[in-house]
Amino acid sequence: MKRLKGIGVSPGVAIGPAYILLTGRIKIARRVLRPEQIEKEIARFHKALATAIRDLEEVKRHIPLEMTQPLSIIDAHILMLKDPSLIRETENFIRRYYANAEWALRKVLDKYQKVFSSIGDFYLKERIQDLEHLIERVILALKGKEESFELEDPAIVVARDLSPADTARLKPETTHAFVTEMGSRTSHTAIVARSLGIPAVVAVKDIMEEVSPGDLLIVDGLSGDVIINPSQEVIEEFLDRRVRCEEERERLLAQAQKPAITRDGHKVTVKANLELLDEIPLAIDFGAEGVGLFRTEYLYVVRKTLPGEEELFANYRQVVESLYPHTVTFRTLDLGGDKFAEELDLPAEINPALGLRAIRLCLKNPALFKVQLRALLRASAYGNVRIMFPLISGIEELREAKKFLQEVYLELKEEGFSIELPPCGAMIEIPTAVFIADHLAKEVDFFSIGTNDLIQYALAIDRGNEQVAHLYEPLHPGILRMIDYIVKAGHKAGIQVAMCGEMAGELLYLPLLIGFGFDELSMNPQSIPAIKDYICSLSFKKCRQLCEEVIDFSSAREVKEYLENWLGKEGLLS
Amino acid sequence: MKRLKGIGVSPGVAIGPAYILLTGRIKIARRVLRPEQIEKEIARFHKALATAIRDLEEVKRHIPLEMTQPLSIIDAHILMLKDPSLIRETENFIRRYYANAEWALRKVLDKYQKVFSSIGDFYLKERIQDLEHLIERVILALKGKEESFELEDPAIVVARDLSPADTARLKPETTHAFVTEMGSRTSHTAIVARSLGIPAVVAVKDIMEEVSPGDLLIVDGLSGDVIINPSQEVIEEFLDRRVRCEEERERLLAQAQKPAITRDGHKVTVKANLELLDEIPLAIDFGAEGVGLFRTEYLYVVRKTLPGEEELFANYRQVVESLYPHTVTFRTLDLGGDKFAEELDLPAEINPALGLRAIRLCLKNPALFKVQLRALLRASAYGNVRIMFPLISGIEELREAKKFLQEVYLELKEEGFSIELPPCGAMIEIPTAVFIADHLAKEVDFFSIGTNDLIQYALAIDRGNEQVAHLYEPLHPGILRMIDYIVKAGHKAGIQVAMCGEMAGELLYLPLLIGFGFDELSMNPQSIPAIKDYICSLSFKKCRQLCEEVIDFSSAREVKEYLENWLGKEGLLS
Repeated sequence: MKRLKGIGVSPGVAIGPAYILLTGRIKIARRVLRPEQIEKEIARFHKALATAIRDLEEVKRHIPLEMTQPLSIIDAHILMLKDPSLIRETENFIRRYYANAEWALRKVLDKYQKVFSSIGDFYLKERIQDLEHLIERVILALKGKEESFELEDPAIVVARDLSPADTARLKPETTHAFVTEMGSRTSHTAIVARSLGIPAVVAVKDIMEEVSPGDLLIVDGLSGDVIINPSQEVIEEFLDRRVRCEEERERLLAQAQKPAITRDGHKVTVKANLELLDEIPLAIDFGAEGVGLFRTEYLYVVRKTLPGEEELFANYRQVVESLYPHTVTFRTLDLGGDKFAEELDLPAEINPALGLRAIRLCLKNPALFKVQLRALLRASAYGNVRIMFPLISGIEELREAKKFLQEVYLELKEEGFSIELPPCGAMIEIPTAVFIADHLAKEVDFFSIGTNDLIQYALAIDRGNEQVAHLYEPLHPGILRMIDYIVKAGHKAGIQVAMCGEMAGELLYLPLLIGFGFDELSMNPQSIPAIKDYICSLSFKKCRQLCEEVIDFSSAREVKEYLENWLGKEGLLS
Repeated sequence: MKRLKGIGVSPGVAIGPAYILLTGRIKIARRVLRPEQIEKEIARFHKALATAIRDLEEVKRHIPLEMTQPLSIIDAHILMLKDPSLIRETENFIRRYYANAEWALRKVLDKYQKVFSSIGDFYLKERIQDLEHLIERVILALKGKEESFELEDPAIVVARDLSPADTARLKPETTHAFVTEMGSRTSHTAIVARSLGIPAVVAVKDIMEEVSPGDLLIVDGLSGDVIINPSQEVIEEFLDRRVRCEEERERLLAQAQKPAITRDGHKVTVKANLELLDEIPLAIDFGAEGVGLFRTEYLYVVRKTLPGEEELFANYRQVVESLYPHTVTFRTLDLGGDKFAEELDLPAEINPALGLRAIRLCLKNPALFKVQLRALLRASAYGNVRIMFPLISGIEELREAKKFLQEVYLELKEEGFSIELPPCGAMIEIPTAVFIADHLAKEVDFFSIGTNDLIQYALAIDRGNEQVAHLYEPLHPGILRMIDYIVKAGHKAGIQVAMCGEMAGELLYLPLLIGFGFDELSMNPQSIPAIKDYICSLSFKKCRQLCEEVIDFSSAREVKEYLENWLGKEGLLS
């Protein structure tokens, strides 16, 4: 028996034999072509591209029409493969380096990986996985190989990685669950798994080495546990757990629509962080009281040309209407300059996270910014909209962003649109913004703390860099003091303070966040039922005392030990 | 008449006709070789390399023996050209890409540029310029061209860029001054210019376009002003200024050895920031009361293998002895992981400034760290040494670093060395460190604020990225509050607080720094006489009031306007 741990991305407990799928990157060689071979190679590339597109259309045909999420993901993939700039760049690499198509495709992938990695938001970075899958699919087609498989007997699929298309082809009747070495909570593969209701655990280190074909596996898609060849005792325990999990899930869902009020009557609004229109019904089911962070980058990154006002407006309007009467807080564009390097003629950056991104990029490119603001203001007529500016570092930047909003507002009024200026907020995610939170609070209607970036900048670490990821620590006393200072400054100025970083969705930190006095927390929809339930079990007064105690601790370790101890005393450890 | 502005790097005012030197990057083409041509191309590369080395040896022969700095710089360059890894990498590029030597050299340069740009310290980043000059020299040799020129009549040399070797060949008799489009204050070219006493202005945008051969130029190597075809009035004004400059310089130098005490009796220690042994005599002449920041990276970056304990010790001991009885504060290694990527088997980083560098790298590589600490402790027996850890983000990191120091100390005692544990400090340059400065202060003997990095991280901008460089603002109220908080936390714990960032050497900021109560400021040696003089003209009490007034301003612009106004009222505007 051996236990491994990954990230549970699609809930459910499954037991069954392992079916090992040998997917993964094919080794490719660099061939140098003679000049006269170039055009033939480009034709070969186009043929493989057509095959890959046909494959995806075949996958699509087998997805039931009511499964809108998997369908729209596969549609997006087909569009990505048809993307003229992807095609042009591959051709360029073939021509410029006299290279074979396989090598050129990998080069294009490298390039896109660099572009995507410059994007501040981790959620979006993961979209590069989709592109990787697509390019591997074309490479397979170049090699004349087919990427498909059929399970004869029910099993648990184990693979290095599964593309969303592979996942969409899995049949719940024969696939008890799947486990992969790669992947993340927010990948499209995870979204498809949840749509299909197939339990899944991703990011399980060494799973391919540890499992042999036919090994018995237990997979817990909630906790992320994977057990290889469990003992009879463990099997029984897990069957039992499966029942309890299901009961707990039902209990949480049944009361997910109730407000989150502490035992002593303190109400906290719990909202969802979303990116796609499709995610809205699920978020409402999970009890989201609106959207605290709607990411607006998706329409900019799935293709290479900039979206126009009408397209953005149509999308935002649908979001706003679907959520009505709930409020939706849109974050304006939070992309790195690299994404627009071609269109806006920007140079590459050595430290993209410290470069031209988010509000900085928008303020330097008024046309880009104004198109989005126009679309957002027009959509605001159809429901309850709030607008939030990311990466604010000082008062001048904030005023400049607000001036654009005001300008666009007056323009639209002039043009006859019947709109009002929606509430406007600043994301607090840069250390200097923390230190002048008292000044910033006077200029906005709300704050929202983006903990992912705040922690990275405050500790000067790139969380995506595994060499320093160990230093990423939300419980660092410096971080806690920053959070405390922001909430106090906001409340002193009479504005609401929200948190929309990942920290808001973790049960461990919740007593501290309640104690600091947040008005609103927003998170992955899946986390909402448990967070709301947990808030109902807390005492606001005791959480406040807890905060007062830990705020003067000198190290993250001390805070963590004290917190865990406190949870135990309060009977709150799960 | 046209005025341009650059950075004055070697003081003195000169008037004369322009001599335009058309140096700069040669356009090179990528040629694809046939396999059988490879070895011939490598032989061609070696021949050019030998020519370039011979050229440099020739330059060296013409430098007077007493000019130790230029000599040691050229020596270092010859070593760089002989560096086996430079040679190996160029050969690899030729072989792997079937490429011509010129193209391969540019590729190697690109690679090194990436490595160097990952180094946090701007001073060191500029060393890549040296490599660029050297590689251009080899490329010239490949083309059979010679990079040399002779001035027949006295003139002011204007060039896109000048290498240190070019500069060393300039004759003060015929070269009134030089002006370049590239370059920086801390480049080796600037050091050589100062050694030769040739006035120089670098980083003058568009100078090559604006100047025609024979144009009359006025160059002010202190202010950085360059005037093309000045009117008679301006010529007279400048001649007058030249006299006044000289007088002012003599006045400042004459009293440079006096302590810096405000009118109302508040003493501030003024020290130098240094990197090279050679710079010590100059720093003492300029009135440095010790070294507040001795950078220790130089011995690690001029070559590719790691220096041993004996070599480091010999160097540190010379530094310590040369400065005795003054104190020298050594900063432990502040390099990015990329520098050691080969030796330590580290991956490349997407955001090197947020990656594995400085104390993080040292704590992860105990052998590397301990060799340096042993050398520093052994050197401490020969004078007054303080040890300072860079990039401290939390209490655990600081304790771990101190534990290494303690371990090494006990080891050395065991081995019979007669040493004491020197005072130990933390650089405060990470936002979380600011927020827990009260805790950190209890663990060290002194703080030193590294403003360059602190400002970058606190504002989340890479100052080297010109797209966002405009946001780099020492007067941002968030930065001023951070500085104020650090000084107060340090003094409350009874320890000294120093500043060693570039901000400390700027006259504009000085009243604020005095007002915040810094015990020590350290800076470029050249700035010391003026800074000491200026301190003597200030009132500590009034500076304190100034700080109390500006600390609650909301924007950098307001602070700046108020400060300039205040300077006017105090009669302190130059």
